[in-house]
Formats: sequence, C-alpha cells, structure tokens
Amino acid sequence: VNGAVPSAEDSAFPLESLPYGVFSPSGGSRRIGVAIGDFVLDVPGAAPALGLGGDDAELLSAPVLNRFMAAGPATWRRVRRLLVEALGDAGLRDTLAPHLHRRESVSLHLAFEVADYVDFYSSEHHASNVGRILRPGTDPLPPSWKHFPMGYHGRAGTVVVSGTPVRRPWGQELEAGGNAPRFGPSGRLDAEVEVGFVVGVGSEVGSPVEASSFADHVFAICLLNDWSARDIQALEYVPLGPFLGKSFATSVSPWLVPLDALEAARCAPPPRDTPLQPYLVEASPWGLDLALELECNGTVVSRPPFAGMYWTAPQQLAHLTVNGASLRTGDLYASGTVSGAAPSEWGSLLELSWNGTRPLRLGDGSERSFLEDGDVVTIRGTARGIAGRRISLGEVTGSILPARAGRSA
Amino acid sequence: VNGAVPSAEDSAFPLESLPYGVFSPSGGSRRIGVAIGDFVLDVPGAAPALGLGGDDAELLSAPVLNRFMAAGPATWRRVRRLLVEALGDAGLRDTLAPHLHRRESVSLHLAFEVADYVDFYSSEHHASNVGRILRPGTDPLPPSWKHFPMGYHGRAGTVVVSGTPVRRPWGQELEAGGNAPRFGPSGRLDAEVEVGFVVGVGSEVGSPVEASSFADHVFAICLLNDWSARDIQALEYVPLGPFLGKSFATSVSPWLVPLDALEAARCAPPPRDTPLQPYLVEASPWGLDLALELECNGTVVSRPPFAGMYWTAPQQLAHLTVNGASLRTGDLYASGTVSGAAPSEWGSLLELSWNGTRPLRLGDGSERSFLEDGDVVTIRGTARGIAGRRISLGEVTGSILPARAGRSA
Repeated sequence: VNGAVPSAEDSAFPLESLPYGVFSPSGGSRRIGVAIGDFVLDVPGAAPALGLGGDDAELLSAPVLNRFMAAGPATWRRVRRLLVEALGDAGLRDTLAPHLHRRESVSLHLAFEVADYVDFYSSEHHASNVGRILRPGTDPLPPSWKHFPMGYHGRAGTVVVSGTPVRRPWGQELEAGGNAPRFGPSGRLDAEVEVGFVVGVGSEVGSPVEASSFADHVFAICLLNDWSARDIQALEYVPLGPFLGKSFATSVSPWLVPLDALEAARCAPPPRDTPLQPYLVEASPWGLDLALELECNGTVVSRPPFAGMYWTAPQQLAHLTVNGASLRTGDLYASGTVSGAAPSEWGSLLELSWNGTRPLRLGDGSERSFLEDGDVVTIRGTARGIAGRRISLGEVTGSILPARAGRSA
Repeated sequence: VNGAVPSAEDSAFPLESLPYGVFSPSGGSRRIGVAIGDFVLDVPGAAPALGLGGDDAELLSAPVLNRFMAAGPATWRRVRRLLVEALGDAGLRDTLAPHLHRRESVSLHLAFEVADYVDFYSSEHHASNVGRILRPGTDPLPPSWKHFPMGYHGRAGTVVVSGTPVRRPWGQELEAGGNAPRFGPSGRLDAEVEVGFVVGVGSEVGSPVEASSFADHVFAICLLNDWSARDIQALEYVPLGPFLGKSFATSVSPWLVPLDALEAARCAPPPRDTPLQPYLVEASPWGLDLALELECNGTVVSRPPFAGMYWTAPQQLAHLTVNGASLRTGDLYASGTVSGAAPSEWGSLLELSWNGTRPLRLGDGSERSFLEDGDVVTIRGTARGIAGRRISLGEVTGSILPARAGRSA
C-alpha cells in the first residue's frame, strides 16, 4: 500500500503509528509534528490539506502538545482519523510534500510541558534484583510490593528530551569502609530502561480515576531513561526515598506514541499470586508487548521485555489517584525499570554488572560496571503492531558529560 | 507613624511586612495584592499612584505572581520601595483609598503556580521523635541526617491555598496484627506545621546554587500544612519514601512574605556537632526567628519555634541543587515539620499524641489522637520584626471532609 509518503510502510514509523512530537526545521520555530516514514509532517502547516477544523488546527498550532492533550479522546481520535486518511492517500502526495521535512534535518524538542512526574517500581524482576543487591539477607521484595504499585515523585523540572547531554552529578557518598560521607562526583552513574505514560486529561481532587478510565486520561507513551547515581541514592534513600540520586536528569524520547496506535500491542500482564484490592482489578488488560533494548556505546547490553511488568499502567494510574490526588495535563508517570527474568533482559547497569561485581564487556573490548564520561546510552523500543509487524517507539539517547570542576571535598 | 492606611502600624500586617498575594474582590477577577493593615491593596489598580514603571506594572498585572517572582531581587526591591513610600505617605490616603479592599471582603487564591515541590525533614527534634515512634530500638536519626538536609519530592498539583477543605483519603493500611493490608479511609490523618520557601529566579541545569545565593533565588516564605495519612505512609514508605500518604493535599498560606521583610528575624541556627561539607557552610546565618502555632478546633495544641531548625533554607537550597538539578520559577520547598525540644512545641499530632498513645484534650473536652471529620486545623505564625515587634505570616487553615463514599474493601 502506498500513501502520501513514499515507503512509509517499510519504515519504523508506518501509517499505523503516527507518533506526535515537537520539532523545528532549520532556522524555524517550534511546531507540532507527526513522524511518518523518514519524514516529519508539519501539522499546523498541513492543517488545510488534512481537513483539520478550526478548533483542532488551533490546538495543534501551539509549540507544545499540552492543549491538544487536554482536549481528550474524542479530539485525539478525530485528528488521528484525518491524519490516517490524508497520509494514506497517494493522491495527496504533491499537496503534502511541502509540509514534510526529512526527519534527520529537524531538531526535536520536549513535546510537552511536564506537570508532576512520578516513577513507579513495577517490574518484579527489577525490584527483586535491587533488593538482593542492596539489602542482602532480607526478603528481596518490600513487604507491600505485591499489594500495590509502589512509586514516588521525581523532579519534573529536569525531564529533558533525548539527545540532551547529562552531566555527572556531584553528591555525598559513603565509600566502602568509610564512616562519614565524602563529597565528589558520582562514581556509580547508571541508566534505567523505562516506559513513560503521558496524561492528557486531568481529574478533580478527591475523585479517584478508575483503572478502566485509563484511556480517557492517558494520551500516549514514550521511552524514558531514569538516570541514577547509585552511590548518592544509597546514602540518601532511607527513609524518604530517592532524591538527588535521580533528580539531576530524566530523559524522554521525542515521539509520543498515542494509545490508539497500541491496540495490537495489548496483552495480559503476568498472573498475580496475591489478591488485589478492587480498585486495582482491570476489566481488560493493558499489559503491552513492547520490545526494548539498552545500548551503551553501540553495544546492545540488554533486551528488556515490557510484557512481563507485574503492574500495568492503568493500575499505576488508579493507585496514583486512589487517595484523591488529582491529575493535570502533562503529568508523566514512568513504569520503573523494566527487567525480565534472564540476565540478558535486565534494565540497569546496577543489575547487569551486579553492583559492579561482574563488569560488562562492550563491543570495543572495554569493560563497564557503571557509566564513564563520554559514554552514550540509547534506549530503543518497538511495539507489536498489526499482522505481526512491529512499530517503532523511537529512541531516547544521552551522553555523559564529565562532572563540573571547581568543587572540592 | 501614620501612613496611607489607618492603624496599619498596630495591625498584623504593618508597613514593614507587605506580603504579596492574589485576591479577587467580590465578583471581580484575580489580581495581585499586598496586605496592609486590615486591607488589601489592589496593586495593578494602584500602579499609577504607586509610581510603578510600565515594566513593573506589566509584571504585576498578571493573575499569579510567577512573572514578578522571576524578575529577580532588583525588581523586588524597587517595587517594595515604591510600596513602602506610597503606603507610608498619609498624603496619599485619598488617592489609594479606591484601591484598598477590606481583607475580609475578598477571596484569596493560590498566589503562584507551583513548579516542583520538595519537602525537607530538617528539625532534629521532629526527626528524632518520628524515629523513636516508627523505628523503636534503632538510632532515632537516620545515619546521614546530620550530613545533609534530607528531602523528597512531593506532588505540586495538589498544593492548595488556605481555606480549601481537605478530603480524608482512602488507601491501603496495615492494621495492628494484620498480615495483609486493608483498603479504607485513613484512620490516622495528621497535620504538620511547616514553613515554605518560594523560588522566584530559576537556575541552569548543571549549575549548583550556592547557599550564599539564597536571596538571589528565593522570593518569599509562606506557612505550609503537610497533611499526612500516617497509616498509608507507614505501609508504603519503604523503600521509596512518602507517596500517597502525603500527595492528597498540601495547604499553603495566601500571603507570601518577602525575604526583605525578614531581615530582623534572621538568627543563627543551632550549633552543629558534625562537620559540614563546604557547600553546606553558610557565611551569614539564615536561621529565622518565627513563632508558629498549631490550632485544632480553636485550641492551640502546640507552639513550634522555627529558630531551632537544624538545617536552614539556604542549606536546603544548596543541597537541592548540588547534583546539578535546576530550579524553576514557582518551585516550592518546605522546611519539614517544625518541632522544638519540649512536647508543647511538637509540630504534628503523631508526636503530640505519641502515635495515639497519649490523646490530646481540646478546649471542648474532646480528645484527639488524629484528626476527625469536621476538624479545623489552623497554623499561624509571626516573625521577629524591628524594635521587638512581630509581623504576621498570616495563617493556613483547612477543615477535614469525610472520606468519599462508595468504595469498599
């Protein structure tokens, strides 16, 4: 099938995907775009050709997606239908051509303004590995882990788009055998493979959002790297949880894949072995068959399977709001590190190097326990699509800058 | 001394205070105001009489303080000087009168859009009490407590202004002797007396803010009630910290008291018994002599002294950013519960009732371990002013609504 964009169907971004992002062409201002084949469609530029009504065109003329996200599922579906029709129509090839930019020629930006950011901890394999590494001799899972999806609030102001370099943080760390913390650059900088969920439609304080209302509120998913300084985190996390060990940067992919593109990826989560409170029972499953990969300096070091996550995104949403906390447009919540059962499926260097005791070997022959300055970390992902195909979630990448100079212990 | 506002000098809000807020007169729209005596000055309305320049008048014509807060200390001081001159001038009484609204006749709103919200844990007495109550038999202070100000991110989207009722949250709680959590309304709802610090001027990612730059970034303080559901918190906080036990609501006072009004309140923090990393050393002290009180249903149950806080606001700011995390206009960070050494100075019901084992007696003869539906909690505060006077920080109040019906375990 040929549509308005040549060879889109053989690309990472076929017609069934159509993720949204914010881009600027060389020298141009920020605008909303849709990835199709090797191109980005300038949505406000193409609005008349797409048949977008005045209200929809207005929502999509902003430099961020928030207003469109807030408009809700009826608007999302109407616009998606128009995009599918126009981009699937070979007769519109000449009409749309002026509004298509080659993807490698544009700059990609953070697609939405982040309101609150929450990070969950929903892979049983990851949580068990972390427990075994950090709290040996105790039950690896926290006692409540199977009763609800555990999470915490992170720093919304340091969520950055893929490609933004990440500077190695300074912090207080306890060296092995030391009895007072030292102050210095983190020596245990890590990446975490995660999937982010972006809230479009907010909710009222005091009104919990049911798991079954997931698709009425959540607009899209993205890939997310929850950069972590393990030494800073280890010293600070009792009793208030992760803080400076995480807050220096969280990277997200530029392309937001709408839930409507993920129907074929839905699957049942793993069987539960602990009874669930009613608010956590899902009527229809929103596990997702996403294949993820973690790459360091060109070597794929892990392939975490998202389908094995114990807690699903609707369960996380229901838990996040069950106390009456409200949602806002732009809220971002992340799955927690995605780790499978096999070591080749673990989603962090902490696990892959077993806290530095089993360094990884990269393609260039070098070893890694944690990240070194100059390392480039990339997370990629695909979702199961129609007829056995896979659609791309794009990628989130970042390189490590050396720690800032000029401070001393 | 008589100025433009009769008897302002004998009131809670004299000329040396001049806190900023956002108000709406009956039927009117939101605008920036300044509290003076029993009145609120409509700042944009009075802009010509105040001699505000076009740029300053423009910043102050918004329905929230964020743009003015972002403008920085030179602007804050220029505007404050004009306000002091005009409001101190009895000759302007007739000119300003049309722009003065009686305080009890207006509605007060959240004065700024909250970016990120961080809550610290900086009272040694509070942290020790909580340790003794929740982790008996262990060292009451976490091992790192004296090495840096511990904190965590809270939910910015549920920060509400004083007067907003707070609905009792549902959640999962472990009953004494139970082995699986039950799901129900929190039975251990608490208040926490805190002071909030409001960031005006942001910072760049990767550039820590020095403690000595505190007053270049922080615009003002407010009173803050960190409502807490102790049963939900107890079940969830290991290992990721407080989450749903806090995220249902955080209340702040409507009046933001500028740092420039607090010079006379500055004092040295308590002596430190543990060496500090250089980034936590303060050249000049920003402890604050604030007298706080916690009232439940008209009975003052505690008078926490803020001057005894171990960690100061500049130290908290330096720690928050030492890993390179950036600040944004509207960031709010809170002191943590303010508790003094004496039981009459403890800032939460958890401490005052020693986890429910010693209920408080209120003025109406009733007992309280934790909050009941309909209870009204008010935090008030004053700061040491010039010549032995005290200036008001206003109050933050909220009543408890019964838990939402219609859910069952």
